[in-house]
Amino acid sequence: MKLSGYFLPTLKEHPAEAQIVSHRLMLRAGMIRQASAGIYSWLPLGFRVLKKIEQIVREEQDAAGAQELLMPTIQSADLWRESGRYEDYGKEMLRITDRHDRDMLYGPTNEELITAIFRDSVRSYRELPRLLYHIQWKFRDEVRPRFGVMRGREFLMKDSYSFDIDYDGARRAYNRMFVAYLRTFARMGLKAIPMRADTGPIGGDLSHEFIILAETGESEVFCHRDFLSFDPLGEDVDYDADLQPVFDKWTGLYAATDEMHDAAEAARLGDALVSARGIEVGHIFYFGTKYSKAMNAVVAGPSGEEIPVEMGSYGIGVSRLVGGIIEASHDESGIIWPDSVAPFDVGLINLRAGDAECDTACNDLYGKLRAAGLDVLYDDRDERAGAKFASMDLIGLPWQLIVGPRGIKSGVVELKRRATGERDELSVDAALGWLTGGG
Amino acid sequence: MKLSGYFLPTLKEHPAEAQIVSHRLMLRAGMIRQASAGIYSWLPLGFRVLKKIEQIVREEQDAAGAQELLMPTIQSADLWRESGRYEDYGKEMLRITDRHDRDMLYGPTNEELITAIFRDSVRSYRELPRLLYHIQWKFRDEVRPRFGVMRGREFLMKDSYSFDIDYDGARRAYNRMFVAYLRTFARMGLKAIPMRADTGPIGGDLSHEFIILAETGESEVFCHRDFLSFDPLGEDVDYDADLQPVFDKWTGLYAATDEMHDAAEAARLGDALVSARGIEVGHIFYFGTKYSKAMNAVVAGPSGEEIPVEMGSYGIGVSRLVGGIIEASHDESGIIWPDSVAPFDVGLINLRAGDAECDTACNDLYGKLRAAGLDVLYDDRDERAGAKFASMDLIGLPWQLIVGPRGIKSGVVELKRRATGERDELSVDAALGWLTGGG
Repeated sequence: MKLSGYFLPTLKEHPAEAQIVSHRLMLRAGMIRQASAGIYSWLPLGFRVLKKIEQIVREEQDAAGAQELLMPTIQSADLWRESGRYEDYGKEMLRITDRHDRDMLYGPTNEELITAIFRDSVRSYRELPRLLYHIQWKFRDEVRPRFGVMRGREFLMKDSYSFDIDYDGARRAYNRMFVAYLRTFARMGLKAIPMRADTGPIGGDLSHEFIILAETGESEVFCHRDFLSFDPLGEDVDYDADLQPVFDKWTGLYAATDEMHDAAEAARLGDALVSARGIEVGHIFYFGTKYSKAMNAVVAGPSGEEIPVEMGSYGIGVSRLVGGIIEASHDESGIIWPDSVAPFDVGLINLRAGDAECDTACNDLYGKLRAAGLDVLYDDRDERAGAKFASMDLIGLPWQLIVGPRGIKSGVVELKRRATGERDELSVDAALGWLTGGG
Repeated sequence: MKLSGYFLPTLKEHPAEAQIVSHRLMLRAGMIRQASAGIYSWLPLGFRVLKKIEQIVREEQDAAGAQELLMPTIQSADLWRESGRYEDYGKEMLRITDRHDRDMLYGPTNEELITAIFRDSVRSYRELPRLLYHIQWKFRDEVRPRFGVMRGREFLMKDSYSFDIDYDGARRAYNRMFVAYLRTFARMGLKAIPMRADTGPIGGDLSHEFIILAETGESEVFCHRDFLSFDPLGEDVDYDADLQPVFDKWTGLYAATDEMHDAAEAARLGDALVSARGIEVGHIFYFGTKYSKAMNAVVAGPSGEEIPVEMGSYGIGVSRLVGGIIEASHDESGIIWPDSVAPFDVGLINLRAGDAECDTACNDLYGKLRAAGLDVLYDDRDERAGAKFASMDLIGLPWQLIVGPRGIKSGVVELKRRATGERDELSVDAALGWLTGGG
């Protein structure tokens, strides 16, 4: 993509309305614009990141055996009356009356609707287990939306739902999602730690939050320092195998949110106790038959008896992760995208657009990098070098390839790694080889 | 995907509520379930088709130089008051009051919001042209939703918006979208004909509907028979070139919806006049400064003067296309998916699951076809052959690969083309070679 034609309205000034760094940087980098309180439009650069994150979430769900479907945003209130949550949910639920005066709502979550789909379609225990998910916009009418996409009203969430014949099956599903979540966040360059959690309005009796550590995190968390060296991507996972050992490893050490913190227990860790700031990016629940009993989602068992299914639900805040990753990965110049979620792989900077040698070299590099399958943002604008460097640092692409009139005369360009600031002068071919993995 | 573990709740009976064939077949094939009137959940099979269609739309938009972003579903009523459409839109607009008593709405279209984004970000004529699009759920509170996803209330739409400094620029954008639409529908195996249209509530003075021909179409249309032999994919398009000749070719012949039909003019075509049933799948509009003037979306011109931008908007009914393709491509046994949008490429049928030879051969084929990059749905269920054939015809995958106990003893399988019903006996290797393009 050539920057001269790309819709990337960056801001030079700090926007006054943004209280936290991710909100400020997303506005400044032209990733989002507020449409109304707590509701955002995703501009092309932000949209690319959102899609990359969504795709990682999808791949890990698929690998864990979950099947994707898509439920609508608008639901009937009747379903929520069946579960008893219509009255319970309070003012965070966006309630709507349609032209025929029917009570509708914008789904804040989908336990009721997926349970209705299940009960209308599945009759026998032989059709279990089922593990279904969707990635859809949700709405929670927060009284005071803030922090940009970190606590917006309209937000993108991945929610999975498991259906099993008994507790053991439900625990296998829970462990699958537990492991899939560890891998999902690790692929985004995040250190996510599962912490035992309250079940809140979803209900149930087993639940974990996945918390990423970031200096600017929203709440205080505590954990054993060994978590910091765990690597969920260290080995392949066989989702058909028994995952309990993985679950046990990751829950055997102390980890707690402020809410669940036990100072006496934590004190026993001594030097091994880490206290940090955390951001919740995922939450998983086992809630047994809470919804299946209320909504009569039963299957016929082996002897024909009706058995209410055992359920769990598993959420990841997809749009929230965009902000979360920035909170965990930025510096005073801007965003530092992990390679896996970067909107473009390389920022190509032409230091003197209009200069024949620079233009030729840049066009050539642009074509070759793209031919090698890389996403390249080419700054071909007629701007000062300083402005170009500042924009590129702000939007945080992993690599910057800098072409200037002096260097190019001797066939030399500069390659900068955004994360470290390290800059190397090297030949055009060496730069190409490095970026395309050719050596 | 193995069918024994796939969430595919097909129905044996015709659902009573479905009046048209696409609605009936989508329910029977386990593609969708109604969540409430005019609102559907997309089950895994339907979701796969929806995503394939969305991806074709996206690729053709990108190729035409449009840039993807994503606007939210919930909008502020204030924006619509600026354009004057808040009162005009009537009861089809789903109006919402949030917890702070602010008037909101579920977007039926996005001219207002994209104009606001533009005016807040673009200052100079030098930043033009801009061509932006998103693919997002919309809501129209139809008084009588029906025909399944063909006239639902919550529907997925691709809408693009162009911003240009003058009429000539706007016409270039219009022609780009015109050509992109021809290619988009052709890639889905559809014969889509552009017909001059009323501009309706969007406004403006140049507009075309794209109508696909299907025996079960919703309205009568008329066109010159030469349209039937035009092929939009016959040659590559250079979107930077002048596309007026393509536009002229496709608009030079008579084509009209019932609404715009001129019997006297049509009569002059004589034998060349075709009368058929049609389904609208796309609609493009040039409306000049209607929104930019009302909402003060201006840019500074070359001498600093304020110029309201020239705009157009361009819609494709993504979820509607799923139904539209089925209307255009089915028989009495079920759906016949064009290759490009099929949820799986191949249905692999094991006629005797549990038989060691059949199981081994099928597992081997399943692995090899997937390794070659094909999406395979493997019917490994313990069911009668008749039921398996009926299910596979119903869901309409392009190819069926049938493995039975007698044939496999001599290394022979059967390959069936769903569209023609043609069946060939051939060796396992020959079948593999054929499906994977290896010869």
